Amino acid sequence: MTRPLQLHPDRLFPADSLSRDIARKLYESVKDLPIISPHGHTDPSWFADNLPFGNPAELLIKPDHYVFRMLYSQGVPLESLGIPSRDGTPVEADPRAIWQRFADNYYLFRGTPSRMWLDTVFHDVFELDVALDGHTAELYYERIDSCLKKPEFLPRALFERFNIEVIATTESPLDDLRHHQKILDSGWNGRVITAYRPDPVLDPDYEGFADNLRQLAEITGEDTSNYAGYLAALRNRREFFKQMGATSTDHGHPTATTANLERAEAKALFARVREGNATAEDAELFRGQMLTEMARMSIDDGLVMQIHPGSVRNHNPLVFERYGRDKGADIPSRTDYVHALRPLLEAVGNEPGLTIILFTLDETSYSRELAPLAGHYPALKLGPSWWFHDSPEGMRRFREQVTETAGFYNTVGFNDDTRAFLSIPARHDVARRMDCGFLAQLVTDHRLTEDEAFELAHDLSYTLAKRAYKL
Amino acid sequence: MTRPLQLHPDRLFPADSLSRDIARKLYESVKDLPIISPHGHTDPSWFADNLPFGNPAELLIKPDHYVFRMLYSQGVPLESLGIPSRDGTPVEADPRAIWQRFADNYYLFRGTPSRMWLDTVFHDVFELDVALDGHTAELYYERIDSCLKKPEFLPRALFERFNIEVIATTESPLDDLRHHQKILDSGWNGRVITAYRPDPVLDPDYEGFADNLRQLAEITGEDTSNYAGYLAALRNRREFFKQMGATSTDHGHPTATTANLERAEAKALFARVREGNATAEDAELFRGQMLTEMARMSIDDGLVMQIHPGSVRNHNPLVFERYGRDKGADIPSRTDYVHALRPLLEAVGNEPGLTIILFTLDETSYSRELAPLAGHYPALKLGPSWWFHDSPEGMRRFREQVTETAGFYNTVGFNDDTRAFLSIPARHDVARRMDCGFLAQLVTDHRLTEDEAFELAHDLSYTLAKRAYKL
Amino acid sequence: MTRPLQLHPDRLFPADSLSRDIARKLYESVKDLPIISPHGHTDPSWFADNLPFGNPAELLIKPDHYVFRMLYSQGVPLESLGIPSRDGTPVEADPRAIWQRFADNYYLFRGTPSRMWLDTVFHDVFELDVALDGHTAELYYERIDSCLKKPEFLPRALFERFNIEVIATTESPLDDLRHHQKILDSGWNGRVITAYRPDPVLDPDYEGFADNLRQLAEITGEDTSNYAGYLAALRNRREFFKQMGATSTDHGHPTATTANLERAEAKALFARVREGNATAEDAELFRGQMLTEMARMSIDDGLVMQIHPGSVRNHNPLVFERYGRDKGADIPSRTDYVHALRPLLEAVGNEPGLTIILFTLDETSYSRELAPLAGHYPALKLGPSWWFHDSPEGMRRFREQVTETAGFYNTVGFNDDTRAFLSIPARHDVARRMDCGFLAQLVTDHRLTEDEAFELAHDLSYTLAKRAYKL
Repeated sequence: MTRPLQLHPDRLFPADSLSRDIARKLYESVKDLPIISPHGHTDPSWFADNLPFGNPAELLIKPDHYVFRMLYSQGVPLESLGIPSRDGTPVEADPRAIWQRFADNYYLFRGTPSRMWLDTVFHDVFELDVALDGHTAELYYERIDSCLKKPEFLPRALFERFNIEVIATTESPLDDLRHHQKILDSGWNGRVITAYRPDPVLDPDYEGFADNLRQLAEITGEDTSNYAGYLAALRNRREFFKQMGATSTDHGHPTATTANLERAEAKALFARVREGNATAEDAELFRGQMLTEMARMSIDDGLVMQIHPGSVRNHNPLVFERYGRDKGADIPSRTDYVHALRPLLEAVGNEPGLTIILFTLDETSYSRELAPLAGHYPALKLGPSWWFHDSPEGMRRFREQVTETAGFYNTVGFNDDTRAFLSIPARHDVARRMDCGFLAQLVTDHRLTEDEAFELAHDLSYTLAKRAYKL
Repeated sequence: MTRPLQLHPDRLFPADSLSRDIARKLYESVKDLPIISPHGHTDPSWFADNLPFGNPAELLIKPDHYVFRMLYSQGVPLESLGIPSRDGTPVEADPRAIWQRFADNYYLFRGTPSRMWLDTVFHDVFELDVALDGHTAELYYERIDSCLKKPEFLPRALFERFNIEVIATTESPLDDLRHHQKILDSGWNGRVITAYRPDPVLDPDYEGFADNLRQLAEITGEDTSNYAGYLAALRNRREFFKQMGATSTDHGHPTATTANLERAEAKALFARVREGNATAEDAELFRGQMLTEMARMSIDDGLVMQIHPGSVRNHNPLVFERYGRDKGADIPSRTDYVHALRPLLEAVGNEPGLTIILFTLDETSYSRELAPLAGHYPALKLGPSWWFHDSPEGMRRFREQVTETAGFYNTVGFNDDTRAFLSIPARHDVARRMDCGFLAQLVTDHRLTEDEAFELAHDLSYTLAKRAYKL
Repeated sequence: MTRPLQLHPDRLFPADSLSRDIARKLYESVKDLPIISPHGHTDPSWFADNLPFGNPAELLIKPDHYVFRMLYSQGVPLESLGIPSRDGTPVEADPRAIWQRFADNYYLFRGTPSRMWLDTVFHDVFELDVALDGHTAELYYERIDSCLKKPEFLPRALFERFNIEVIATTESPLDDLRHHQKILDSGWNGRVITAYRPDPVLDPDYEGFADNLRQLAEITGEDTSNYAGYLAALRNRREFFKQMGATSTDHGHPTATTANLERAEAKALFARVREGNATAEDAELFRGQMLTEMARMSIDDGLVMQIHPGSVRNHNPLVFERYGRDKGADIPSRTDYVHALRPLLEAVGNEPGLTIILFTLDETSYSRELAPLAGHYPALKLGPSWWFHDSPEGMRRFREQVTETAGFYNTVGFNDDTRAFLSIPARHDVARRMDCGFLAQLVTDHRLTEDEAFELAHDLSYTLAKRAYKL
């Protein structure tokens, strides 16, 4: 007995009828606004080459760490899902078998955002109208697979169908941005820009750091063996990224530590780091120092700075050794901002022309640290609820804990932050629905007038992201 | 003027009519399911000897630290409640005087779960229909006291009336489990099993630790003066507990610290600990090492492992000196999991056959650490909201903060964790109502279909506990 | 097109109709109760001299760090708001220009408590019926300015109109309380009392600490060069404050650290501190020791003790250097209570005659530390949600996270804690509405009966504050 797959028009709206009615009207006014996607991890080659996506497993399971982390937690081996191993462990090669395994276990996602995003993709993109389970797995596979072969499911066609006004990918300074160049050269008018993510050349603990510095020198012609040359090389690549359309940088450090060292100290620290003599404290201090340097460069070149701290990467060594990075084993940890950011803020926090967007995986910092900081420093804004918190309850907690101290205008709209391209409309839709619901409740509480709520719904869905990221 | 005591059939359900209607239907489908009580502190002698419970004060006030901690916080001396002193301080001996004092102050419990549990006991077990206060204290005393003398209020009769399918008590490895043996021998078919709680022989800071090791040697015939013999003795008692019906172990350390030392290091550490030369760091490290050893033994013998960390025991030295342990003066503290559990998880976290159930008193870890960990590691599951959070708002926060990242199937249903036997049905009822309410809201939000909610209501009320604890 | 300014009678009540109806009835029963304001920062000279307040900018913008911190965070320079500089930076002198700037940016406060308080002041005090924005700025200025010149807007007239039964200001032990004396001498029967805030003479890091000790010696005739004399001087000033009407003390330390040193140790520490030889650790230890000494003095003289820890003061050095203290740059940080308070609680926590009221800026401590501590120790009570959390969502989180463990009777009603005199009725009104809403939801959930809710609404709005602060 198959069950219907339906997306109710009122989903995620508040339950009481007063608020639900208002939420419905607010949502109606923003649901068709173009998507601004200022931070994410889609692959620019999709849009450069515009080739068909692979099969359903290739498209929807193997790249989605939200999906296979949950299956793994319930005893489904990663090899049975076809996750490529680094050590030669044989993995499932049959995409139909992978899809069936996924479908058999789809009930595990009840109550999770993955379930909502996937159902929306199934329903809206592939026009499926029965629910996914072991019995409908084959039907699903056939439908999705046949769709992917059609021209209207090519990356650029989907980009247009999704009403994406602009999307940012994320690249290392060592990237030559050839895909972005190809898109620019192609005459297609989809706007796909890059963002500057220098972790591989800023973080002494990054795999291949020394090599990366050498490459950076080659690419830029700067002498990265001294601090001044190193900074010049970083500046050089920022300039190149900016010319290629970038409006922002991004920094994914383990903590929010910042530093503002005297020049001589910074030079000595860089020397230790470059020679591979850095202690763990040195490495942390260097990352902190570089955040402040990056902020200074942002004052000069106008690139918006994003900080995504607080993830303990590769928590599971067995999974890391066998399958590598980004396999669902990154775990948040307690993150201090109020002390950690002080050196950076002392240096640049009062610059009204600078925009630093802070993210967190530690929700305890919302009301205690982030909202008070963003509600004071001109340079600070708050990114939306991130990663594990990019979900209905996570978004609700973000608004409830941030708004009263930082207001709405120290936030920057929504980021989908995803490599799951097909889910982008679903993710923005969840954010718009939750924001409309939150605003509706403020109207029902008489904390906001209805006309203000309409303005804010538009701002939160569209304007704030566009303005904060200078898009 | 006495006030009526009523238990409304809709209590704890969501307020909006859409969700309330669904909650009512879901609850109707689970309210009569048998009780699975996989973790708690009832006294096995009650079921072994099946003697009448004492008077109302003896039964409901003196053993309930939730009750007397609140009274104490408002200036009611513990001696006036008859809490036995260790230092000869005279205490109230008249149970009627104690009961009157409790009744006079019963209003202090407004808004607390104790109030709900007690009212349910009063109404459902003792069929009282007026509210407890100073005026009705005597009526209450008489009714309860006379009931306790009747055969249908004997422990086994109540066990059956409460529809308990299985209950676990908690014993030290030094316990001979005579009460459990007596139950087994009695022919009574109530299922009362033990759980293995080795803190007294694992924690160097436990009172009488050295003596405990000697006793452990005697009981098992193993030489606990060396690490191998010590481990063998622990394994030996696990085996005995398992034969007596145990399916789980339990560990109540001050933190979640774990360690995975080289054998030689572990042996040297054990030597220091055994000889009483352990520093505070040694003691902490040893507890951590033993959690990993216990997990390894669980892989072998299949006992489910529970970890209950994060309580600062005996925070109030005056109360501890005068009245001893468990007198309402245990206070939670900040608890790290993401770093603390890493050694254990590196060693055994990927074992799909192992089940480790984590609890917390630090709700900030729900969304930041516990849900991400349990949503990745095959060996990890999350226990329900614990102790101070075993309450309507605490349960709501647990589901709201855990579900989106860990789903429902990395949780294990409800634990009552209580020594207050009469309140067990009330506690499970609160959990079922709150879960049905949470599910109903997901249905109202269209995040879940109604048929899924019915399945989940059954799983959360019954199946998950039974399966996770292998009952 | 001007928009109307309306205060809906149902504002802040729960959205579902069951709870909203009950909330309305509860609120009706408490809305006209007199205001008890046991902790705040109004200026006693207002009531002593009873002179007209200045212009709108002087009254509502320049002293309100909630207001100008938000404007500053969005790029409005503090000098453009007329905030007086310490370094000679020229600042806007025209109050109309300041008001216009504020009005132009008033939309930034959407969703914040400042917006609610201000709108209530505009509507209820100045009888404005159009919303504030750039177009209505002048109308607002004229109306407010002309009101302030009328006798019914003099401080004492407003005090009476606001139905304030008693208000506490906050003064240093070095203050001569001349304004309070003038009020007492005046024959006016408004009750304005002081509170003893000894930070300037207890905290070695306080500006001018050494000088402050010298002044303290002069005022009291005690020899503050030795510990006994220093304690005697503090006791002496407590006695004076008490004679002048004070019923409480207040302590705003960076952390909740307490200590209970041996006398010889304390004397040696004081010597180091007095001579300016204290390390950072010494200073912290000394503040901790003094909290315990203050608690001991409270046992003797009966003054209620308040502890307001956890703010990192003057986080922004540029703002501090140019504009000084209290300019919206104080940021909360993680605050431990369970370990930090242990020395104090060991010394005095079991005293039923002592009242220590704890506040926090770290909401994670509500359910994990503060409610368990207050639900056990006779001396402890919990102050209401504070500062950044003195807001609808903040109040809701406080009640939801505290009540189940500490009950209602370990809390102390509402504190407005403000220097914004005109907003006092609005702030108490928000608290009463939120408490009535919370109680209404407990009634709707059938966790509380309606008659209990009426009693509690009265207690939370009036009785608890009066009783806890001995007013």
